[in-house]
Amino acid sequence: MPQLRLALAQVNPCVGDIVGNATMIADRCREAAAAGAHIVVFGEMALTGYPVEDLALREAFVAGSVQALQTLVTRLAQDGCGELATVVGYLDSDARGPRDAAAVLHRGRVVARQFKHHLPNYGVFDERRYFIPGTTLTVFRLHGLEIGMVICEDIWQVGGPITALAQAGVDLVVAPNASPYERAKDDTRLALVARRAAELGAPLAYANLVGGQDELVFDGDSMVVSGRGELLLRVPQFTEQLLVCDLDLAGGSARAQGRYAEFDVHRMILSDDSLAAYSPATPAPMAEPLSDEAEVWGALVTGLRDYARKNGFGSVVLGLSGGIDSAVCAALAVDALGADAVYGLSMPSSYSSVHSRTDAADLAERTGLHYQVQPIGAMVEVFVRQLSLSGIAQENVQARCRGVTLMALSNQHGHLVLATGNKSELAVGYSTIYGDAVGGFAPIKDVPKTAVWALARWRNALAEKRGETPPIPPSSIGKPPSAELRPEQLDTDSLPDYQLLDNVLDDYVEGDRGFSDLVAAGFAPELVERIVRLVDAAEYKRRQYPPGTKITLKAFGRDRRLPITNRWRERGLTD
Amino acid sequence: MPQLRLALAQVNPCVGDIVGNATMIADRCREAAAAGAHIVVFGEMALTGYPVEDLALREAFVAGSVQALQTLVTRLAQDGCGELATVVGYLDSDARGPRDAAAVLHRGRVVARQFKHHLPNYGVFDERRYFIPGTTLTVFRLHGLEIGMVICEDIWQVGGPITALAQAGVDLVVAPNASPYERAKDDTRLALVARRAAELGAPLAYANLVGGQDELVFDGDSMVVSGRGELLLRVPQFTEQLLVCDLDLAGGSARAQGRYAEFDVHRMILSDDSLAAYSPATPAPMAEPLSDEAEVWGALVTGLRDYARKNGFGSVVLGLSGGIDSAVCAALAVDALGADAVYGLSMPSSYSSVHSRTDAADLAERTGLHYQVQPIGAMVEVFVRQLSLSGIAQENVQARCRGVTLMALSNQHGHLVLATGNKSELAVGYSTIYGDAVGGFAPIKDVPKTAVWALARWRNALAEKRGETPPIPPSSIGKPPSAELRPEQLDTDSLPDYQLLDNVLDDYVEGDRGFSDLVAAGFAPELVERIVRLVDAAEYKRRQYPPGTKITLKAFGRDRRLPITNRWRERGLTD
Repeated sequence: MPQLRLALAQVNPCVGDIVGNATMIADRCREAAAAGAHIVVFGEMALTGYPVEDLALREAFVAGSVQALQTLVTRLAQDGCGELATVVGYLDSDARGPRDAAAVLHRGRVVARQFKHHLPNYGVFDERRYFIPGTTLTVFRLHGLEIGMVICEDIWQVGGPITALAQAGVDLVVAPNASPYERAKDDTRLALVARRAAELGAPLAYANLVGGQDELVFDGDSMVVSGRGELLLRVPQFTEQLLVCDLDLAGGSARAQGRYAEFDVHRMILSDDSLAAYSPATPAPMAEPLSDEAEVWGALVTGLRDYARKNGFGSVVLGLSGGIDSAVCAALAVDALGADAVYGLSMPSSYSSVHSRTDAADLAERTGLHYQVQPIGAMVEVFVRQLSLSGIAQENVQARCRGVTLMALSNQHGHLVLATGNKSELAVGYSTIYGDAVGGFAPIKDVPKTAVWALARWRNALAEKRGETPPIPPSSIGKPPSAELRPEQLDTDSLPDYQLLDNVLDDYVEGDRGFSDLVAAGFAPELVERIVRLVDAAEYKRRQYPPGTKITLKAFGRDRRLPITNRWRERGLTD
Repeated sequence: MPQLRLALAQVNPCVGDIVGNATMIADRCREAAAAGAHIVVFGEMALTGYPVEDLALREAFVAGSVQALQTLVTRLAQDGCGELATVVGYLDSDARGPRDAAAVLHRGRVVARQFKHHLPNYGVFDERRYFIPGTTLTVFRLHGLEIGMVICEDIWQVGGPITALAQAGVDLVVAPNASPYERAKDDTRLALVARRAAELGAPLAYANLVGGQDELVFDGDSMVVSGRGELLLRVPQFTEQLLVCDLDLAGGSARAQGRYAEFDVHRMILSDDSLAAYSPATPAPMAEPLSDEAEVWGALVTGLRDYARKNGFGSVVLGLSGGIDSAVCAALAVDALGADAVYGLSMPSSYSSVHSRTDAADLAERTGLHYQVQPIGAMVEVFVRQLSLSGIAQENVQARCRGVTLMALSNQHGHLVLATGNKSELAVGYSTIYGDAVGGFAPIKDVPKTAVWALARWRNALAEKRGETPPIPPSSIGKPPSAELRPEQLDTDSLPDYQLLDNVLDDYVEGDRGFSDLVAAGFAPELVERIVRLVDAAEYKRRQYPPGTKITLKAFGRDRRLPITNRWRERGLTD
């Protein structure tokens, strides 16, 4: 049986950094060549980063991508990587418009191109805004083996390019991807890749990006699955890594070029010489799937680290209230950037409990982050007295003096400010705009409150397993949540129990279910009505909230686009 | 020649208020029937408001729209409007998904439907995210006349439905629209409608919505153009109005139903009786086109008024610095809501000039808005001393204490806070996030600084022409702009001259032109590089900026979607 050594390059490009990304790709190609690979596969738009959004509409940017590809292919030949077939995603364009493209680089030339056919225009994706869909499929012959290409969404859609390639006959399909992380998506992904490989009757090599880009995290999880559905190689999530895998391929499977399943299939020859038989490399140890919490934690750390790093921040500052949200954000920041890059601030008011200070100090002690106390009493006093504030106005001034304090330290010392709100709060508007909502990044904005607790317990247990100090004070996990903006205040004064709240939010926000569906699911009508109204009324606050890592099926933001001005209420017409 | 009396109903629905919108539509139908109209045409999605964004994906919302249409048609028959053919835009769905639809209501039944074919997915539009395109065209016969329907974008695209209807033969085409305002779009629109009517060889009745919806303003400008390209009726911009127009139609132009220009054309009969000849009504006086400034002012007033009204705010509060931006915002607010609903606040610091206070007081005097002075010295002092602030941190604390003050008064009294920044500042990030950027709405966020001055002069001249007091202090117009955050500070310390800045921004932001294009256009390379870097680096601030009315071809926001994390610099590869 013909053999081929394939390398999957799971890389972390930065959007717009075409020169830096090209250098990184060249480095990985040298690594692949040194490992004896015959072909190396990178992710979708690895050269430009993904998603480039409206940069795709700028001629200068498209020209930059195309030019960098030419420079790269010359450099690869000079670097002794010319024999390695390099499949890399980039941005191209032709007379009809921009293209989400993959190129094959070989012996100093761009020898083949493939344009993405299925352009997702749902969820976070706007690809119909940018790209013209590809309508032909290119199959290239390497060492006598027929290799097809599909890009990302093209493997998710039933029928389409994979079906065409299956009918046309191929020995291998390579698939550059930019598939953002969502909880449990890795399970779906493996099943999908296995199904499509079985349909092909040939191995499918799936190369995903890794790393954070604004609200998205690409988790990697690149893999190769055989035509019999066996997992041959799986790259660990959230790591930059290049792994090789020796494939035994059928060979001789190609039918004539022509039209298959609505696609014109073109064939071209790079090299027709069969490889001499060789001893396969020791297979890389297969990455074990992570637990749910480990995976979410990995996504959150990656998202925060890359937002800070790619935007040039060396340190972060955040308010430490002694509560669970700020404690988890601090622990994430320490894991992402190291304790020395994290500045925590306790900002007690006259309504702050003793434990708000002791728990914050305990957190600082456990994690080793920089810690200081700045009481806000004097600041609040001036506003309340001069403006004669009372009630909610007085409560919010406290949160806003904290916001001003954090921003002042950011301006003075160059820290990135972290907003510590969770998804449940953001959903119902339980936050003070320009107060605790202040920040350049919000690490847990897509994490429901109940999941915040679960992550805290998981992270502490991990530390114990490793013989380290658990970072999060048990008291922060155990105590009832409070905003502490008035005496004896508890979140449950204003909100339902968090487990119940999260259950309703899960159906209303992620599931997009209406009032009657929610009631049919067993929730009390008054409860549903109350929560739905809170969620709808808080849209204006969410619009001004900082970006933060998406981990759920539907995050607030471009995943869920609702008008601010919106009189629809889920009881609808009888209102 | 057969006659027909057509009414254009230029209405202002609220997104989501299906019941309220249906009532408003029924009222307008009674008015049309009383005026002897045979057919009345409403705008696109008049029943649900437009754009509904992700509400289109909620089953309960679609069901609400469909149910309200049924209720409406019954009510129209009961109200004596059954003989009136009512063409109204609404949201529908079928097995394939949601549809951007128009219905014909007649004699108590929904007798015909038309689904939009061309779905815009550029600029502010995401219609491929929501809707399945229509592929058939419905032509209905009313009093023996053949009437076709197209929806919005369907008349903008060359070929397509209009070409099919021209080939199939029709006596009249009606076009429900939701066409957002942009500077000078009315000129384009008239030329377009005239061109398409000439292609049809039959009149085209274009009914647009009017009113504000978040960042969009629909300006109306509904019109009827004859098959010879003559303008027969034009409804004034920014007004809710129903106007009638008697048409002399060719009749007998219909060819067989079947396939024309890739569309299946279906014909159906509502009534075959020719109307007896009648004397035409006196034509409505033709709306004169507004001057550029009058049109922009109308859009800004409409956008602000509707944002406040539709979101339940009875009053607004804003900081008055004595400068041109806050003065123009105040004048807009007074025009939109009345002086008694506007609260202006002078918040001097130790760096504030004498004229900052006297000009603000003069503005209050001229407009009659509520005015108070709240010095921020004591507030700033606490932060600066306690946190040892200097430099930019100290400057920004002043803007942030003003932000906290405005929000406190909003919380205490229920006012909507207005952010007063202009587009040039927003472009280059010349604002303090959580400081002067605080607000629920930003009336002039899409108005370049040079246009702010022009609007101020125009508004004052208008007042003089009317014999009223010009609202904006001449000193605010004449003096050099300053943020007054440090002694003797001027905007020109940090920024190029505004005329030059706006010229570059016009090409870079609205024109999406790259570095070399800008240099080729005659701008100095250092200047271009400096401005481009400022614009790119301020993306994170714009994300957290309040919504405000779009008036240019490309507003910041969903019109221009760029990543925050973005290392692309317009000098590109040589960087």
